[in-house]
Amino acid sequence: MKKFFEYNWQKRDEWVNWCKQLTTEELNKKRVGGVESILYTLFHITDVEYSWVRGIQGKEDVVFQFSEYDTLEKVKSLSDRLRNEIIDFLKTNITISDAELVSVPWDENKYTTDDILHHIVAHEIHHIGQLSVWSRELKLVPVQANFIGRKFN
Amino acid sequence: MKKFFEYNWQKRDEWVNWCKQLTTEELNKKRVGGVESILYTLFHITDVEYSWVRGIQGKEDVVFQFSEYDTLEKVKSLSDRLRNEIIDFLKTNITISDAELVSVPWDENKYTTDDILHHIVAHEIHHIGQLSVWSRELKLVPVQANFIGRKFN
Repeated sequence: MKKFFEYNWQKRDEWVNWCKQLTTEELNKKRVGGVESILYTLFHITDVEYSWVRGIQGKEDVVFQFSEYDTLEKVKSLSDRLRNEIIDFLKTNITISDAELVSVPWDENKYTTDDILHHIVAHEIHHIGQLSVWSRELKLVPVQANFIGRKFN
Repeated sequence: MKKFFEYNWQKRDEWVNWCKQLTTEELNKKRVGGVESILYTLFHITDVEYSWVRGIQGKEDVVFQFSEYDTLEKVKSLSDRLRNEIIDFLKTNITISDAELVSVPWDENKYTTDDILHHIVAHEIHHIGQLSVWSRELKLVPVQANFIGRKFN
């Protein structure tokens, strides 16, 4: 599962770099499908990943307001900061349980740690797929999505 | 990893059902981003998954021509047929090696079984993310993508 996290993070960073060619207006433009805008998508996957990881840890959710992270630099900085916490957690503390149920404040159902980790991974890949369509609509080449051919730490 | 395959298959079937509301023209219409059309996307993820699984098995690649699978029924039938083979393989024969390298005819590089399985999973989720944007462009509600809340066999 850690490889999927590394894949998502590597690709997220590549999308952040890709975004540097866009104007603020293009980054924030509301588009059809997906979640709002290109920038909001990057914020959203960062936020959702962190919320679920805190949920697994039994920690209180931290709510981030997009209005406070409404530039590429701020989203990148948030992504980096939260990732460091997640790396520490994944490295040291995680027991991937397929039995014990985790409860989170934003969902009335309970899920196993194993299912939540699957959910986090699939959630980001799905949204990045949406970015790739928006990229082509902008007549730009999207970030390469392949898993194979990448090197991870 | 098996859970991700089941997630992809369940969602693929839901997309096939979702497609039933579309005309043949809409199914085959060439769209911006992704691979060609909605129907071609479903064919492509089916084809790619099978090719890589055969690659892992050391079996010769079977090349499918889209022109022979150019209706929803034919793609669904192909998907079902190949899936049965893949299920049998995943259930009984797979050793997920992170060392031994697999060689396939369509790629000059070699990859581990573990990386190839990651690749297959991410490949389908990515393309399904693209379908979700096209769905909204058609003013239709896409198939729910969440991993959590699903039941697998």
